[in-house]
Amino acid sequence: MATNDVVSVSHSMLLKATDLKDDRIDVISICLFVFLLCACIVLGHLLEENRWMNESITALLLGLFTGSIVLISSKGQGSHILEFDEELFFIYLLPPIIFNAGFQVKKKEFFRNFITIMFFGVIGVFISFGIISTGSWYFFSKFGLKNLPIRDILAIGVIFSATDSVCTLQVLNQDETPLLYSLVFGEGVVNDATSVVLFRAVQTYNFDNFTSLEGLQIGGSFLYLFFSSCILGIASGLISAYIIKTMYFGRHSTDREIAIMTLMAYLSYVFAELFYLSGILSVFFCGIVMSHYTWHNVTENSRITSKHSFATMSFIAETFIFLYVGMDALDFEKWKMMQSSFTESAGLFGSLLFLVLLGRAAFVFPLSALSNYSTKSPDAKINLRQMVIIWWAGLMRGAVSIALAFNQFTQGGDAKDSNQATLMVITIIIVLFSTIVFGTATKPLISWLLPPHFRSNYSDSASLSPKASLDADFHIPLLMDTEREELEANDRSTINQILNGLPRPQSIGMLLTAPRSTIHHVWRKFDDSYMRPTFGGRGYVRLVSRRDMDIQEDEILEDHS
Amino acid sequence: MATNDVVSVSHSMLLKATDLKDDRIDVISICLFVFLLCACIVLGHLLEENRWMNESITALLLGLFTGSIVLISSKGQGSHILEFDEELFFIYLLPPIIFNAGFQVKKKEFFRNFITIMFFGVIGVFISFGIISTGSWYFFSKFGLKNLPIRDILAIGVIFSATDSVCTLQVLNQDETPLLYSLVFGEGVVNDATSVVLFRAVQTYNFDNFTSLEGLQIGGSFLYLFFSSCILGIASGLISAYIIKTMYFGRHSTDREIAIMTLMAYLSYVFAELFYLSGILSVFFCGIVMSHYTWHNVTENSRITSKHSFATMSFIAETFIFLYVGMDALDFEKWKMMQSSFTESAGLFGSLLFLVLLGRAAFVFPLSALSNYSTKSPDAKINLRQMVIIWWAGLMRGAVSIALAFNQFTQGGDAKDSNQATLMVITIIIVLFSTIVFGTATKPLISWLLPPHFRSNYSDSASLSPKASLDADFHIPLLMDTEREELEANDRSTINQILNGLPRPQSIGMLLTAPRSTIHHVWRKFDDSYMRPTFGGRGYVRLVSRRDMDIQEDEILEDHS
Repeated sequence: MATNDVVSVSHSMLLKATDLKDDRIDVISICLFVFLLCACIVLGHLLEENRWMNESITALLLGLFTGSIVLISSKGQGSHILEFDEELFFIYLLPPIIFNAGFQVKKKEFFRNFITIMFFGVIGVFISFGIISTGSWYFFSKFGLKNLPIRDILAIGVIFSATDSVCTLQVLNQDETPLLYSLVFGEGVVNDATSVVLFRAVQTYNFDNFTSLEGLQIGGSFLYLFFSSCILGIASGLISAYIIKTMYFGRHSTDREIAIMTLMAYLSYVFAELFYLSGILSVFFCGIVMSHYTWHNVTENSRITSKHSFATMSFIAETFIFLYVGMDALDFEKWKMMQSSFTESAGLFGSLLFLVLLGRAAFVFPLSALSNYSTKSPDAKINLRQMVIIWWAGLMRGAVSIALAFNQFTQGGDAKDSNQATLMVITIIIVLFSTIVFGTATKPLISWLLPPHFRSNYSDSASLSPKASLDADFHIPLLMDTEREELEANDRSTINQILNGLPRPQSIGMLLTAPRSTIHHVWRKFDDSYMRPTFGGRGYVRLVSRRDMDIQEDEILEDHS
Repeated sequence: MATNDVVSVSHSMLLKATDLKDDRIDVISICLFVFLLCACIVLGHLLEENRWMNESITALLLGLFTGSIVLISSKGQGSHILEFDEELFFIYLLPPIIFNAGFQVKKKEFFRNFITIMFFGVIGVFISFGIISTGSWYFFSKFGLKNLPIRDILAIGVIFSATDSVCTLQVLNQDETPLLYSLVFGEGVVNDATSVVLFRAVQTYNFDNFTSLEGLQIGGSFLYLFFSSCILGIASGLISAYIIKTMYFGRHSTDREIAIMTLMAYLSYVFAELFYLSGILSVFFCGIVMSHYTWHNVTENSRITSKHSFATMSFIAETFIFLYVGMDALDFEKWKMMQSSFTESAGLFGSLLFLVLLGRAAFVFPLSALSNYSTKSPDAKINLRQMVIIWWAGLMRGAVSIALAFNQFTQGGDAKDSNQATLMVITIIIVLFSTIVFGTATKPLISWLLPPHFRSNYSDSASLSPKASLDADFHIPLLMDTEREELEANDRSTINQILNGLPRPQSIGMLLTAPRSTIHHVWRKFDDSYMRPTFGGRGYVRLVSRRDMDIQEDEILEDHS
């Protein structure tokens, strides 16, 4: 019957699973991923108390499991829904994660350890890159990969220098081990940024005439790139703060405020990418600036909403990435193209893993020692256990490695030749191994290395993961922990200044003996005198609603003036 | 110098604007749209007090303006960044809007007028479709479009039956004119759903053997489709409520709760699309169910965050759509393919516009009269002024029409022949005209038709737009307005029942004389006895935080038991 066409067409299309058009594939893959995301969240919640699993590993395993099912049901042919899309990763999945990292970071700790974090994140990548590239060049020809182009070898160096410290961060507690957490956290973000920039350089660089002078010029262009990206991010944050402070959206609409915050953050990322800068650094610093100024300019509902929305978007993106990596691991096309024997593959795997461990150790321990040497304060010294944890945190390889490998070794999803297929597969195996095996061992290892008496008696939320402690409802939702501490600290110092009438001495002597606190002091004065009056921030909130917290903040405003 | 490659490559690629690869186009277009969205929000805020403009029109004009700039700067060649992507619209932009509509709708009003809304939304589309198709078949041959396939004529009928009542809703106040608002609002959603379903039927139907028996079968399959979509949406909502109630996420993480709500809502949409059902209806009813059960099962932070996130996502999507439509209007390819003369085009435009007005009037007035005839209660009667407003609200054509037209008349962005190019261009012109001209006239018209003494003295928020009144901070953020009313009403009736010990008489007589209130009463009992204990909902909130509102809700729980 012709009238059954509407229904029969749908039925016939459902049955012809192998005869799908592109738009159907899109709907099917979206369905599948959204369903798997829900399953991940439920499973992750159920396994919360488990001492081995965390959500990243759960997502990865679930992805692997689903990938195998798809593979089996399509009789070994795989399917295009499993293809890893680097654009999706870099343009849509990574920005929310990095932005939320900048938004939630404890700024005081981060800037206190800024130099160390930069050393780990930038110089560390270069050291690791050097070691892995050299080692690969040495080992690969022994295991069957002959005549690899220099660009591929260098790409491998970058790919395996890009760490994924999510697993470790999920175990560490920000309040108990603030120094350690901030180093691992900060290094993770800077490492991502450096790896991406270095990767682009490796891809575009002309290797014919390399001289030491050009080595310096490379260094110079990196500095320029980093500096511009940070400026761009900071500018985006300040513009958003200024817009919201001036336009006074709160009077009309929470939605507009949140929309502006989200859009301007994303704009900082894509704008940086447009000009070939580092979107990761840009959006990270945008997050820092927004949490310092913009967040305080919005209504209370907006504050709660934005804080939790950013965290939720980051959480969904992270879970999605691991699912994606897991499902893509079983895309058979690449596996079939490999021509290496099992022994050769095992040899490649083993040697690369060794290089990863070595490359990381080669900078973590020396740079930590260097940092300890230059620090007077005992709180900021990194002891050996912490060094081991920092080393361990950077052993896991994740989505950034996968994305970069896809970019280098495949074109439109298919490897160009058997060598590249081998490299792609080895990358996937190392990512899976490091995340699952090393990741699972992380919780027990850290419990062993950092028994409770080693941690500071900082908070009563020891049993909660860092993520949860940010969200638990018994925290005052209006202020984040850092803000509350800073608030109290700031009030004390400001009130002291006002009462005593004595400015703190500023001299070169002060700068040399206590550089960090002097810089902090100078920054505070600059911030209070010029930045906050222009861009808003804590203590400059307009009375929008009559809830108690706003009244309290207005009282603080009166104290300042 | 080779080392400048990193920087010089980026510079040269910036300059070669005409030599862009696909991924650069993506980054550029994302940058452009995000920037324009920010500009829209700022402009929209500045023009809030303007009596002519609203945000949809602002976005549309801004899109047109930017489109012209791009066109001029690329010397009349246009650019692929302006291409309207139906998949983007239907899969990513429309669901948040419809879901938020279901989430925010005043359920009591909606279900009180359910039959009328369904009549307007479903039967109205068919009547309008019939009139416009017949009229087009008559007029088109007179204005130069000869030998159009029957499928194209019917498609035009559907395309111009799909209304966009956003402009009117932005002007009407939900509290002052509840009946009117709920009719326009509800009809808008059902109209979208019906148009999409009818459009698919028109595209796939085999017209060779059309008999009256098959007419009935078409009707049957529509009913099946509507019914299944609603069931699917309701099921998704209930599952999410059950998961959150049982899993007790709140103890750990606000992020997981919000993630589950968002993902399950989206899953209801794509799942429906996967099975060729109506994703619009599915996600709409999912939103209704979630606001009734799931929303109450989450922590207070989650409630605030979810409510505002959904509204913000909907707001961004809506603005984006109008921007998109505006920018795409000036895609020259289609304009160049037209072979109609100016008089012919003017004739087509005029005749279609006339048919739109006629088609709408042909069902609004008769169906309103029919509704009035069958209603005893004076509150639910639609007077003539309201009929005119309902008629007017459905005159504007928007993104759904554009999307359907693109789907029918273009392939990969290019029209197939000159007739189709003409139809595409005419559609765009009618959408622009109706939105800008009719939309601008909406505010003055409604002020004239509904002077203040015609509106009920319902709330003190008369000066705020409906959107803003939902967000304004002086409302208790915990409960939406409807919930607060229902809470009070429910307490009264339940307490009365308990005190009096007398159940309300249920008889056929009651059902006939006061059908709406009887159905409502039966629903209440069912909801309280079976649904809420299983799926959660108001009054069944666990004490997660010690804030006052939760304590108050626990006291209500004790009253019920």
